[in-house]
Amino acid sequence: MSVVQKGGAAVASASRRQFLKAGLAGGAVAAASTVAGGALAAGDPLITEIQDWNRYPGDGVDAFPYGKPSQFESEVVRRNVPWLTSDSISSINFTPLHELDGIITPNGLCFERHHAGIAVVDPQQHRLMINGLVDTPLVFTMADLMRFPRENRVYFLECAANSGMEWRGSQLNGCQFTHGMVHCVMYTGVPLKYLLEEAGVKTSAKWIMPEGADASAMTRSIPLEKALEDCLVAFKMNGEALRPEQGYPLRLVVPGWEGNMWIKWLRRIEVGDEPWHQREETSKYTDLLANGKARRFTWVMDVKSVITNPSPQAPIKYKRGRTVLTGLAWSGNGTIKRVDVTLDGGRNWVTARLDGPSLSKSLHRFYYEFDWDGSELFLQSRAIDEAGFVQPTKDELRAARGDNSIYHNNGIQTWHVNPDGVIENVEIS
Amino acid sequence: MSVVQKGGAAVASASRRQFLKAGLAGGAVAAASTVAGGALAAGDPLITEIQDWNRYPGDGVDAFPYGKPSQFESEVVRRNVPWLTSDSISSINFTPLHELDGIITPNGLCFERHHAGIAVVDPQQHRLMINGLVDTPLVFTMADLMRFPRENRVYFLECAANSGMEWRGSQLNGCQFTHGMVHCVMYTGVPLKYLLEEAGVKTSAKWIMPEGADASAMTRSIPLEKALEDCLVAFKMNGEALRPEQGYPLRLVVPGWEGNMWIKWLRRIEVGDEPWHQREETSKYTDLLANGKARRFTWVMDVKSVITNPSPQAPIKYKRGRTVLTGLAWSGNGTIKRVDVTLDGGRNWVTARLDGPSLSKSLHRFYYEFDWDGSELFLQSRAIDEAGFVQPTKDELRAARGDNSIYHNNGIQTWHVNPDGVIENVEIS
Repeated sequence: MSVVQKGGAAVASASRRQFLKAGLAGGAVAAASTVAGGALAAGDPLITEIQDWNRYPGDGVDAFPYGKPSQFESEVVRRNVPWLTSDSISSINFTPLHELDGIITPNGLCFERHHAGIAVVDPQQHRLMINGLVDTPLVFTMADLMRFPRENRVYFLECAANSGMEWRGSQLNGCQFTHGMVHCVMYTGVPLKYLLEEAGVKTSAKWIMPEGADASAMTRSIPLEKALEDCLVAFKMNGEALRPEQGYPLRLVVPGWEGNMWIKWLRRIEVGDEPWHQREETSKYTDLLANGKARRFTWVMDVKSVITNPSPQAPIKYKRGRTVLTGLAWSGNGTIKRVDVTLDGGRNWVTARLDGPSLSKSLHRFYYEFDWDGSELFLQSRAIDEAGFVQPTKDELRAARGDNSIYHNNGIQTWHVNPDGVIENVEIS
Repeated sequence: MSVVQKGGAAVASASRRQFLKAGLAGGAVAAASTVAGGALAAGDPLITEIQDWNRYPGDGVDAFPYGKPSQFESEVVRRNVPWLTSDSISSINFTPLHELDGIITPNGLCFERHHAGIAVVDPQQHRLMINGLVDTPLVFTMADLMRFPRENRVYFLECAANSGMEWRGSQLNGCQFTHGMVHCVMYTGVPLKYLLEEAGVKTSAKWIMPEGADASAMTRSIPLEKALEDCLVAFKMNGEALRPEQGYPLRLVVPGWEGNMWIKWLRRIEVGDEPWHQREETSKYTDLLANGKARRFTWVMDVKSVITNPSPQAPIKYKRGRTVLTGLAWSGNGTIKRVDVTLDGGRNWVTARLDGPSLSKSLHRFYYEFDWDGSELFLQSRAIDEAGFVQPTKDELRAARGDNSIYHNNGIQTWHVNPDGVIENVEIS
């Protein structure tokens, strides 16, 4: 394995101005004109001639009451993998992480996972029932829920199966497919605690079971302690109503815990004194170990990160010089404290720059700027959360749990960068 | 004017649990079943019968590669006012603030203001030039810009003319129209400082003039100090590419300053030693005073707030009991320190609850929960920012500046709530 490391630590400690100068000086003369923008090219028609968009007015403000992306961004979409499941109504599509930046996922690009397709629920007819071990069983209309105090929180939502196919080696070539079962939006909702208090939870209660109104009638068992701690009954994402595929008009938000528990089209919450052992917490969403036993109730999404650019779907276009490496890190335990990156498959690590709001149980954005000399690279990132957990290698995960697992793979991902800028999903030991 | 004030201060100091109990106890018996959700209604078909969405599977994950809102939300759109301008290509549409919550505006609902319609710019052909008082004039492709360090920041963008028609009294009935020229997203971009450093700013430079690539070729003068402080050359909003109507593929972000300066379709930045006195900073975007002189260079958007619910487009549906009042506050000076609200037109003020991230030069969300007895209300909010500025009354603004102004109205807004829950835009003195 070739080692490429161009003074990353020195760059990280230098001032920005120094870095920019170093970047220019470091580039070959031939490359300098594209590294930082060319000097004025007198004959370039893109500079000297008037473009059509400068010559003719465009559409007016009445053209798109609800706006949509540019025609030049038509490839920035969620993608599914048809062979992955037998039917698209019980399948997944993936967030195009390699096309995004920052920490907010636009609503139209949030990955979906359904068990019976997208339910189309009329909010006027929707009801939320709370029953079981409560003093007063209650039924809420959407209008009823609007009368309770609300909270706004940015949370990531990750499917427990995200990166699941990586357990047994590299299979899918692109972070959209290896890590795209995660998104992050600002939710608005009523703390579930207030609704449970309204019904009056009996002292014998220990668990809740939320249930969806779709044709799969999804159910999961959640400890009452978590329900009272930070769960939201949410009706808005990024300011507007939930999207149909995200549970419109109502979903449960279970911060930091696996996405399957965030029941969509939420219609009922039963309060009980023991877990219900439903299908989705016995035959599914448990982790089969090498000895044939299964881990259960593995709810928290562990500390994890991935480099989104460069990555297989986003090769390096410039063959030399300044390169911006960026990615995402997150943890169900809270905030991300630090992200390290390596260009040489783990021989040398440097600390990445975290940028933007650092919010508990939210995505975090990291960057690392370096000069590339065109040699092959083995890119990895490793996140550390505020609880001190360090993202493990895939080998460490397999040593602990065997390789039967599908869920909860938070192992370090490797991208191999060829000298031509083409990138592949690989594993190194 | 009738005075209605139901112990708001006491409610604000009580614990949440006490508040919920008080809310129930305070409601008439007849209202209790709708205040907090009804007791289980055995015969209600919405509870006892299986709905179609529970019976039949929905669309699969391949149905909408880029998602869209629910069919039940078709009225949640930007709206323009056809009589406001002579042509829709030089006009405004408004964010539906009364339909939103939290602080993030979804990209499809961000208000637009154009001077020559929506330019459709090919990013492959787009260039950004830096010229004027620089050591080396430079031209950047979009790919060049991707090689500079990026930042992610949540900022509000407000048109200087927002609430402009309120200077001479109430005219438009709804916060979408009185206050809807504001939105708030997370931008990703390159600090302008890095690009200017790359070109090398001459010591005589004091101003920059960004220029747009659309048919209006919008230009404004901006002090170099601001350009170096926090301006971004942005290419993403809420994670994805800028929308066409927001300047795709590149716009200038000028945090806290009036929206007209946030040049869209950014193609050139000239560096100079004095302002250029362009059309949009002389005949427009100046503030005509009573004595016939005009204030100029009034860039900062002053501390401001508005109650978004209840409001004329969002009347109170329940006629009694628990009501959630909510709204937005923002300031070009930084964060919001406090928001006060009154139910009786200013006789009694209580402190609202700020919720969600408090980010500099970003929208802030506030709430105030109270019990309504059905009497008429005069709702107002008053924001105070971290610099200590207090939102003024409209009369105070007029006393200082006369009533010729269009721009920079940050006066306190009043909504009159009738006993039937219908709400109107009014002024009280």
